[in-house]
Amino acid sequence: MFLIEAFVYIGTIAFAISGSLIAIKNNLDIFGVILLGMTTSLAGGVIRDLMIGNIPPTNLVYPQYFLVSLLASLATILFYDKINKFEHGITFSDAIGLGVFTAVGANAAISLDYSQPFLIVAMGLVTGIGGGVLRDVFVREIPFVFRKEIYGIASIAGSIALISTYELLSPTISLYICLTVTLTIRMLAVKWKWNVPIVHKKSTIKKRTVNF
Amino acid sequence: MFLIEAFVYIGTIAFAISGSLIAIKNNLDIFGVILLGMTTSLAGGVIRDLMIGNIPPTNLVYPQYFLVSLLASLATILFYDKINKFEHGITFSDAIGLGVFTAVGANAAISLDYSQPFLIVAMGLVTGIGGGVLRDVFVREIPFVFRKEIYGIASIAGSIALISTYELLSPTISLYICLTVTLTIRMLAVKWKWNVPIVHKKSTIKKRTVNF
Amino acid sequence: MFLIEAFVYIGTIAFAISGSLIAIKNNLDIFGVILLGMTTSLAGGVIRDLMIGNIPPTNLVYPQYFLVSLLASLATILFYDKINKFEHGITFSDAIGLGVFTAVGANAAISLDYSQPFLIVAMGLVTGIGGGVLRDVFVREIPFVFRKEIYGIASIAGSIALISTYELLSPTISLYICLTVTLTIRMLAVKWKWNVPIVHKKSTIKKRTVNF
Repeated sequence: MFLIEAFVYIGTIAFAISGSLIAIKNNLDIFGVILLGMTTSLAGGVIRDLMIGNIPPTNLVYPQYFLVSLLASLATILFYDKINKFEHGITFSDAIGLGVFTAVGANAAISLDYSQPFLIVAMGLVTGIGGGVLRDVFVREIPFVFRKEIYGIASIAGSIALISTYELLSPTISLYICLTVTLTIRMLAVKWKWNVPIVHKKSTIKKRTVNF
Repeated sequence: MFLIEAFVYIGTIAFAISGSLIAIKNNLDIFGVILLGMTTSLAGGVIRDLMIGNIPPTNLVYPQYFLVSLLASLATILFYDKINKFEHGITFSDAIGLGVFTAVGANAAISLDYSQPFLIVAMGLVTGIGGGVLRDVFVREIPFVFRKEIYGIASIAGSIALISTYELLSPTISLYICLTVTLTIRMLAVKWKWNVPIVHKKSTIKKRTVNF
Repeated sequence: MFLIEAFVYIGTIAFAISGSLIAIKNNLDIFGVILLGMTTSLAGGVIRDLMIGNIPPTNLVYPQYFLVSLLASLATILFYDKINKFEHGITFSDAIGLGVFTAVGANAAISLDYSQPFLIVAMGLVTGIGGGVLRDVFVREIPFVFRKEIYGIASIAGSIALISTYELLSPTISLYICLTVTLTIRMLAVKWKWNVPIVHKKSTIKKRTVNF
């Protein structure tokens, strides 16, 4: 599990940076930048733990995730211009975060002996997107996952891959498969600008052509 | 309990349609439409279950509610123009949803041996309005229940009716009484355009005259 | 504990008034004013109780906190113009609320045998700011704690003071120390217009000079 633990830190850092960047763009103060970074990186896991009865939530018991998030926020504050330029790097880290958090969330549900596939997929999704949803709500944006590209779908596909391989292969291998599937779908969606179509209000479905 | 279970599906469908319609109006993509429909129909019950310790939440363990919500969202996407015209039908279904979810939520608290009336009313209200509150937050609107017509009050009245009759009559009958009271008050409020007065900022209370 | 219990009511009243004032300014109806006052005064404690497994949440079991909140909201509706003028009084009450809720929240975590300092600080913070965050989200504002003055920091400092003195002195005394530290820092920040600096987008950090 060593490698997946390392990935968790990468995901935490990526999510903290994404929250901090958005906080800075919204003129939040330094405390707000740190708090939004922390919310983005820790809240998904907290909500998942509430839902599966893992009390108190892991992310609030062990301070290392918060400390990593804090350092990532401080780095974002100090090196804002440089970090803001690495758009591709951030998107890639965020995709790793989505994949890792999905894998860890789905695995947490299985570890607590919840075997219902729907619950497992939901816990992967909640862990992967929960922090980002709160981040967007707090800065008054429609949450990203509702409106842009293949994001939630990548998480769901990853969890399904994890469930399908958990018994056949070892749990650790299925975690990596989940991470790989989520990350691959997410990055292909970014690269090829895949989007889920929006619903045209005259009942015809068309590809989204403009970003908003 | 067969009939009330059927009503639960009607409520789930109505709430999923209301979430999906609002999602389409906000130009969310198809995934976002399904996710917002699901949030609207399932989140109230999830929040209630967290509050009364029913872990993991029923709506995340049994996929049938999600599947019904998914089908309702897909139908809304396919037949948007037709469904959008049935405004009265949707309002009526939504009122059934509010009544059923209130009854089920209040009953869930009683079933877990929580006898404090305030908690029972709160659980009915949270179950009835929780999904709609999240729906509105995610599309950046002030939640409906805070600003329009007799909505939360109908739920509270229904729960009080349920508590008053639970011991006297049978639990099943009191569930129907709760549904009937909530539905009746809600539909009368819609029909007669009852609104809770707003507070005029010079301390005089006047009826709201414009919609916003 | 008598005095701290009295302070809890002061905090509840202050938070209910702050929620009600903001509701009235947003033209919510009377039901919305009461509901937003209730959310502001009760939600922080509810979220904390969910996180530490104190189920069902105290604020939903015992109706006295709701009743005090209800009375405060009704008084705000009746005497809006007068109450709205006491800006300093409200700020001071709110600071008492922040201090008391922080103390009570941190203490609740300790009482349930959670000794991890990070969790205790987090529970103080969640209890102190949770209601205000939801209040602001529901009226579509970026939550106050993310953007203005020394607010969250006062809560964190108070919890650290509580943890530092809990073993040395008596728990009751450390509660008062927490309240005093939080209240003092908060009021000094208001009086001297201390703000956490915001991050300038060219990587230089400057003091905020304008309010927004």
